[in-house]
Amino acid sequence: MTIPDDVAQDLLSSMEAMRLDQQRLAEKVSKLLVPKTSSSPEGSSPTTSVAPKIDSSKSSDLSTYYPQRVILTTYPSQHGVRPEPLTWGAKDAKERGPVIASRHAESIKKRNAIGAYGGSYCIYRALAVAIGDLPNNHRPNFEMTEPTFDVLPNDQWFDPTKIVSLDPWGHLAPSVYKAEYEKGLDVRPTIAVTRAHMTMAEMEMNVQNGNLTVDGKVVVNKRGDLAVSKAAVEPVWYLPGVAARFGIEEGLLRRALFEDTGGMYPELITRPDLKVFLPPIGGISVYIFGNPAYISDTSKKLTLRVHDECNGSDVFGSDICTCRPYLIYGIEECVKQAQQGGVGVIVYFRKEGRALGEVTKYLVYNARKRQAGGDTADHYFLRTECIAGVKDMRFQALMPDVLHWLGIKKIDRMMKHDAIVGSGISIIERVPIPEELIPADSRVEIDAKIASGYFSSGQALTDDQLAKVKGRDWEDIEH
Amino acid sequence: MTIPDDVAQDLLSSMEAMRLDQQRLAEKVSKLLVPKTSSSPEGSSPTTSVAPKIDSSKSSDLSTYYPQRVILTTYPSQHGVRPEPLTWGAKDAKERGPVIASRHAESIKKRNAIGAYGGSYCIYRALAVAIGDLPNNHRPNFEMTEPTFDVLPNDQWFDPTKIVSLDPWGHLAPSVYKAEYEKGLDVRPTIAVTRAHMTMAEMEMNVQNGNLTVDGKVVVNKRGDLAVSKAAVEPVWYLPGVAARFGIEEGLLRRALFEDTGGMYPELITRPDLKVFLPPIGGISVYIFGNPAYISDTSKKLTLRVHDECNGSDVFGSDICTCRPYLIYGIEECVKQAQQGGVGVIVYFRKEGRALGEVTKYLVYNARKRQAGGDTADHYFLRTECIAGVKDMRFQALMPDVLHWLGIKKIDRMMKHDAIVGSGISIIERVPIPEELIPADSRVEIDAKIASGYFSSGQALTDDQLAKVKGRDWEDIEH
Repeated sequence: MTIPDDVAQDLLSSMEAMRLDQQRLAEKVSKLLVPKTSSSPEGSSPTTSVAPKIDSSKSSDLSTYYPQRVILTTYPSQHGVRPEPLTWGAKDAKERGPVIASRHAESIKKRNAIGAYGGSYCIYRALAVAIGDLPNNHRPNFEMTEPTFDVLPNDQWFDPTKIVSLDPWGHLAPSVYKAEYEKGLDVRPTIAVTRAHMTMAEMEMNVQNGNLTVDGKVVVNKRGDLAVSKAAVEPVWYLPGVAARFGIEEGLLRRALFEDTGGMYPELITRPDLKVFLPPIGGISVYIFGNPAYISDTSKKLTLRVHDECNGSDVFGSDICTCRPYLIYGIEECVKQAQQGGVGVIVYFRKEGRALGEVTKYLVYNARKRQAGGDTADHYFLRTECIAGVKDMRFQALMPDVLHWLGIKKIDRMMKHDAIVGSGISIIERVPIPEELIPADSRVEIDAKIASGYFSSGQALTDDQLAKVKGRDWEDIEH
Repeated sequence: MTIPDDVAQDLLSSMEAMRLDQQRLAEKVSKLLVPKTSSSPEGSSPTTSVAPKIDSSKSSDLSTYYPQRVILTTYPSQHGVRPEPLTWGAKDAKERGPVIASRHAESIKKRNAIGAYGGSYCIYRALAVAIGDLPNNHRPNFEMTEPTFDVLPNDQWFDPTKIVSLDPWGHLAPSVYKAEYEKGLDVRPTIAVTRAHMTMAEMEMNVQNGNLTVDGKVVVNKRGDLAVSKAAVEPVWYLPGVAARFGIEEGLLRRALFEDTGGMYPELITRPDLKVFLPPIGGISVYIFGNPAYISDTSKKLTLRVHDECNGSDVFGSDICTCRPYLIYGIEECVKQAQQGGVGVIVYFRKEGRALGEVTKYLVYNARKRQAGGDTADHYFLRTECIAGVKDMRFQALMPDVLHWLGIKKIDRMMKHDAIVGSGISIIERVPIPEELIPADSRVEIDAKIASGYFSSGQALTDDQLAKVKGRDWEDIEH
């Protein structure tokens, strides 16, 4: 009987892997016999990186799409691996270098980042390739996609400790790294900048009841349409900077990101030379009301609302929390600031349910409503901790990065967040949400948060008082 | 050359064994080369998977949190690896078995899934562990988190081809796998079921203008508050089923998910025995208006809207698309169906910008507005393809799974989607969005989609006509 092609291929692969292993082993043994020099980097052995093809199906697609053998992970000293230089925080785009996270043929050996472009959506891109919809060597055409307003380099970009979770050159990448792109490197923008009109029912009501006035520029018409400039930002983590921000070792950060995601990206461990990681998480959207150039102009007043995603309230108006009311109030304040000659900024982070995700959030809701004594403010955080182990995973320490990208130096009117002041931006006035905008059932959350120091103003209640702030029982909800 | 299959197989096995021996030897040599820092237990070291510790800092945290050496990937035949049996589509919870994606000490060798709980949010959990906020052996307390309404096993759960992208037992896991949890296995729910009140400005307007009436049950009060039952669903992919759904080989799917995410989860390659994958992507939210028990009752009318996330419109009301208007219209139709004795369901998928992500979406907006001739419907998809390589990455083939989980057999009134009919659910009537709800600037999108067959009703335009459907130029927007 004839050996099937793929089995023969596996045999050959396996044999070749053994031969390589043996060579390396021989090198190591000779090193043992020779006095050690400093030019032998630890952990550089690629012995474990080549594995035999596991799936022995006869798929012709598999070998067509992926003619190479699987490389499970890479090591710094591997043949031909020469990452493009990347100096985080450098004063000039060329010196900084492009972020390249690609496995394209032209880029794989010059790649200087772990992970993939597009955050979570790299999974969908992989599906598109698998199905044959997308060639895996597709190169985007970035013609006409340039930003619609300037976000220009400023001193805050050049302090490598100020911005560690996004690439400040992200929106300019196709232009400032045009030469690298044309050389074949897979340079992609990780930020996009555009503008739009917004139509929101709340703004229509605001115009009707006189809370907002039509000026034809910010509030465009009687329906309350708003003109807005906006940006979308994907996460780009400079690992030494992220570790420093949290006061931990880079090695520990890398290990945790690997282990506690179930073994995602072994290169977090094997490629200490790659300092940048594009994690598969949601990014940031920035909404700017008024002239974007005013953001970094300290002579102009700035109103800021930092908002973490809450799909249940932001989209569907759930009354158990204050998220959409706060967001709407924030937009109103931003619009008013713009109309008064200043500028307003809303920063929206994709961190559903305090970055615990919506499943955990709903589990917490159930436990809150069912606990003995009902849904009271004194047990608000406890119920989250029982399930998630922590009350919050948003890590606001990374939040101010986007403000530094925008060139914000001071904030005149601000809703929440100590992390900002800690990062060197001053806040002139903190603005609490007006009482009448707080839904009744969300009082539990608000009072628990005030007591826990989430807000600077608003009276902190005692434990006894917190126990008295009670949400609706389920019995109150007819279903 | 002709040799019998079994001889060839023996050859391969023997070679593989030799390779493993060699790797063990390599490891021993490595240990001679690297000065020993911690007393790592010998027996626990799986052969090919051990890499030397990269970070040679004296971090006591690193060795405290992670006393074991790094295991870069695992292999099916490793010592002690014995995944909990998992039979996808089995008729009974016990026979099906729990999904275990955990690296907890008690679970790691019994793990039967690749990836991590929580979708994308596993990255934040890893950060919490790194920082010391969360013990990496934290075990959630699921007391009182049980579903607030029943979603019970039905025949659709037991067809392993009908549901491949979520775990139908996900919301019941803490109860049906209680014994496994108590044995120490890290069993977690991947679905949560709760209920809520919604307050939306559009519904208040609907009550005011008589479009919706207060019934005290679905529309709770004059402000238009809605009573709703809801569920959050995390992705759980049964890889053979996902591959079959797209008509590709499982091996190709695994390889693409590994390669085109930049080398995420080598276990996709090395653990063909693990058939389940929890990808780090966003999940699904389900909103139910009326009695949830009616969903699987074919004698009751069902209205359905399937909606893919569009943060710019859903939250901020951007007028370049119809997303929020369509969603609001969907909710109205669902509410009316519930008030007429039926039930309404909105399914919300976290697939921003057709699963291309928001950065790509904004880049496309810019190119659309700037192209010669302006933003016309005939170039709508072209501009996306230039940048993303495809016009859409949502892969609606996986979308009907959640409908099967809910036990939906027929849909009386439906907005969009051919994939549903293909999966064996019949649609009685398709409901287009009323003309007056379509924002002017979004006409480009709607007409391009109608011409491309996105909707069943609505007149398809010719190429010439499409060229005449033009969006606002940027010059029309004063900034």
